[in-house]
Amino acid sequence: MNNFDFHNPTHILFGKGRITDLKDQIPDDAKVLIIYGGGSAERTGVLGQVRDALEGHSLVEFGGIEPNPRYATALKAVNIIHNEDITFLLAVGGGSVIDATKFIAAAALHDGDPWDILTSFGSVITQAMPFGSVLTLPATASEMNANSVITNPEKGAKLPFRSAHCFPVFSILDPEVTYTLPDRQIANGVADPFVHIIEQYLTYPVNAPVQDGFAETMMRTLIDLGPKALANPKDYEIRANLMWTATLALNGLIGAGVPQDWASHMIGHEITAYNDTDHARTLAVVLPSLMNDQRGPKCEKLLQYAANVWDIRDGSDNERIDAAIDATRAFFEDLGIKTRLSDYDVDASGIDHIVAALKDHGMTELGEHGEITPKDARRILEAAA
Amino acid sequence: MNNFDFHNPTHILFGKGRITDLKDQIPDDAKVLIIYGGGSAERTGVLGQVRDALEGHSLVEFGGIEPNPRYATALKAVNIIHNEDITFLLAVGGGSVIDATKFIAAAALHDGDPWDILTSFGSVITQAMPFGSVLTLPATASEMNANSVITNPEKGAKLPFRSAHCFPVFSILDPEVTYTLPDRQIANGVADPFVHIIEQYLTYPVNAPVQDGFAETMMRTLIDLGPKALANPKDYEIRANLMWTATLALNGLIGAGVPQDWASHMIGHEITAYNDTDHARTLAVVLPSLMNDQRGPKCEKLLQYAANVWDIRDGSDNERIDAAIDATRAFFEDLGIKTRLSDYDVDASGIDHIVAALKDHGMTELGEHGEITPKDARRILEAAA
Repeated sequence: MNNFDFHNPTHILFGKGRITDLKDQIPDDAKVLIIYGGGSAERTGVLGQVRDALEGHSLVEFGGIEPNPRYATALKAVNIIHNEDITFLLAVGGGSVIDATKFIAAAALHDGDPWDILTSFGSVITQAMPFGSVLTLPATASEMNANSVITNPEKGAKLPFRSAHCFPVFSILDPEVTYTLPDRQIANGVADPFVHIIEQYLTYPVNAPVQDGFAETMMRTLIDLGPKALANPKDYEIRANLMWTATLALNGLIGAGVPQDWASHMIGHEITAYNDTDHARTLAVVLPSLMNDQRGPKCEKLLQYAANVWDIRDGSDNERIDAAIDATRAFFEDLGIKTRLSDYDVDASGIDHIVAALKDHGMTELGEHGEITPKDARRILEAAA
Repeated sequence: MNNFDFHNPTHILFGKGRITDLKDQIPDDAKVLIIYGGGSAERTGVLGQVRDALEGHSLVEFGGIEPNPRYATALKAVNIIHNEDITFLLAVGGGSVIDATKFIAAAALHDGDPWDILTSFGSVITQAMPFGSVLTLPATASEMNANSVITNPEKGAKLPFRSAHCFPVFSILDPEVTYTLPDRQIANGVADPFVHIIEQYLTYPVNAPVQDGFAETMMRTLIDLGPKALANPKDYEIRANLMWTATLALNGLIGAGVPQDWASHMIGHEITAYNDTDHARTLAVVLPSLMNDQRGPKCEKLLQYAANVWDIRDGSDNERIDAAIDATRAFFEDLGIKTRLSDYDVDASGIDHIVAALKDHGMTELGEHGEITPKDARRILEAAA
């Protein structure tokens, strides 16, 4: 096992009816900016529940955070914070809203150009405003980590950052608020954590049976419950287990002490930056092709994945790896997520654009060995055409 | 899954050579009380590593915390804190030293009789001094939770408490410091987390596949690595995996959202209070007998445990449960841990004493259903004679 630090101070309040506990999580004298996305937070009643829970608090609202949240929009919220003397932020939404809130929390206290936060991958952040979240769309685990991804279409960039100052103080996870999510978002909310787990698991063995066993448990749970969640939208137990799995998939736990990959994510981000494809869907395109391409360096873990996640134990090494990749692709497709670039209107010139963007953004040494170059990414993308 | 809160702010620094990172975890201007146990912390060089890492800090030392740490000893440390204007505590040791430090941290800031902390199970605690730990003996997970158990021999009491104010700010886990531990402590450090896991797992199903899978992963890891740790004292990978497993076994993770038992612990504490038997050994005595006694209410989880932890899948329900209990007992015995009360010189009058103590301490409704009474505890103990 590798040396590691694990530190995750976010307080999770999980379960039915927990939004009412908001009042105890935010100081009485705080001036709160509620940050949300489109109209669904209002339509589903979640914003109403939040307002009720915070009755007596001083509230300002800022809606309009996009999927793949945009830099310019986040800066508008920063202006409101300064103009209104906001002291606490509350994200009400999914990963996009929480990601944006992290950026807003850091940018509001940043001296200098906020763009530096992204180009430094967060390393310039020395402080951030306190913020909590009410999660409405389980997928990214942004509710329990210090990671964020911000898109700047003017620069054709979708850039991740991280800072220890950007953990939510608390996050409220009520599985019932997910009952009204469209199938597309539920499917994304299964595929995205699945690939988060894979990025921290499918590398090379370092003798970490607990991290591996946790990862395998969660992948089996997603495989079991993903299709059931689509078939039974109001089954509390299914939604609860998916919600907690998505959070644990990227809260630092299973990645502690093991190598990590993240090449599928970095390549996928450039697909989204290119044509706004849903994040999870870009992962479902890249991952099976990357698994196939990297079967050499990933051989041992691919065989372990085949056996412990898919119960594939017979055949030659290559046959078992082929079967595991096929099962992975079929898992995504069965959720209604297409796994080819052509399904998302990305052609050869699109691949050219994506590979160029990887170079532009310094993504030239990807993967757990830092050996996946833009040339390799091109081969992986071409095989996913 | 049940509603739950999960909040664990302790920063873990894990791996070889991490004690040198102490200097960055404690404020430069802190006046530090180093709290430790017997002579082993000095003899093994860990205290020396700590002093080296904190060169330049103002340090005071307090040794002599006992296994099953004692109330009167902890109060001596509280006096030193007040007399020396200590601002930060550093526990260097195992669960006993860290447990004592939690009590000291709370008692130092408590108005009124510190005994109230124990009789209220911690609910009177409103603040505690900041403290960190350097773990030398993995077993209890005290390094990453807010729980403590303090013994008061004058009152024949061993009482647990918990407070959200009593999380370590940080804990340093260097597996290399465990190389010199005696076999007895390594064996205890396998059995104790095993039973911690069982207390959070072996109840009744609530549809929590992730928590169950995590628990089963860790139990299989302890079963695999426990005997190997005894045979290979300087195998870093084995010690590292045991150390991290022991921490994760009781940091709140696998207990979130599921019922919990803790009857074996409460009965075991009274055995220790009676004749100072090692905590882990009391658990190894009580657990197999309790599993057998409670096979009715625990039937479903016992069968799941048999299948997923021991790969016992053939036979009638009772046959599989019998085999799982036998395997559990053999696991403890193979670690050199005896599993009968007679092995620890507890006879019929000892059982009388232990059952009376359970009543005295209000432990009258134990287990996940609150249905294990002192009468049931007597039956469980008599079957463990």
